[in-house]
Amino acid sequence: MADKHDTPEKAEGAFYEAFAHRNLEAMMAVWADDERIGCVHPMSELVTGLRAIRESWAGILHGSPVLNLRVELVMRVRRGPLAIHTVHEYLSTGNDTARRPIVATNVYLETEIGWRMIMHHASPTAVSVQAETTLH
Amino acid sequence: MADKHDTPEKAEGAFYEAFAHRNLEAMMAVWADDERIGCVHPMSELVTGLRAIRESWAGILHGSPVLNLRVELVMRVRRGPLAIHTVHEYLSTGNDTARRPIVATNVYLETEIGWRMIMHHASPTAVSVQAETTLH
Repeated sequence: MADKHDTPEKAEGAFYEAFAHRNLEAMMAVWADDERIGCVHPMSELVTGLRAIRESWAGILHGSPVLNLRVELVMRVRRGPLAIHTVHEYLSTGNDTARRPIVATNVYLETEIGWRMIMHHASPTAVSVQAETTLH
Repeated sequence: MADKHDTPEKAEGAFYEAFAHRNLEAMMAVWADDERIGCVHPMSELVTGLRAIRESWAGILHGSPVLNLRVELVMRVRRGPLAIHTVHEYLSTGNDTARRPIVATNVYLETEIGWRMIMHHASPTAVSVQAETTLH
């Protein structure tokens, strides 16, 4: 039985806890059970639907070592039953420290069984546009 | 005076037309005039606020040749005043044909002056997870 998350923040917390612990079942319990959900992994195209999203995460979590994961919420918008969070994810393994974050836009929908993830779009970063803009 | 877009689709059409024609003013007229808007360019961190987003696009459009731009809508969610579109953007210049799309998640908010963009998260693709999943 999946936890019922009464805020988008709790759904996001459960998602990243599952990610850090490589717990596929716990992660998938955060997603809405719907065909109209989407996931973009770094450097990848959109994957849609619960089954394909599960398969994509199974491959990622299976091959992954234990992760240190720090997540910074950088923007949040909420209107009615939708919440959009943009976060910077700092992933590292062991002594390796992540210098560049993954930037992810996460969308949550309020359903009868609580807030669920309907979109996760993650992409790598190589440069900081904001920093460059400030420097010029 | 910016056009009033009565659907998220019209706002998206105006955004990509401005992008293809490197028209910064027309593109910025699609964005909501708000500090709580965000833009992620490929391989970059989040840029927030209208002024910083304008500066980031000015740099991109200024250095860009005339673009051929084909946009495929691959997922759409709309609830109340928010609409989330995920698209694959195929950009090319002259005879160069884009093989790999940019995947972008665009968020639109219905305001008193029509639908406006509040988020654009674009990232490069190198592999197709969906295709790999099918092959395995």
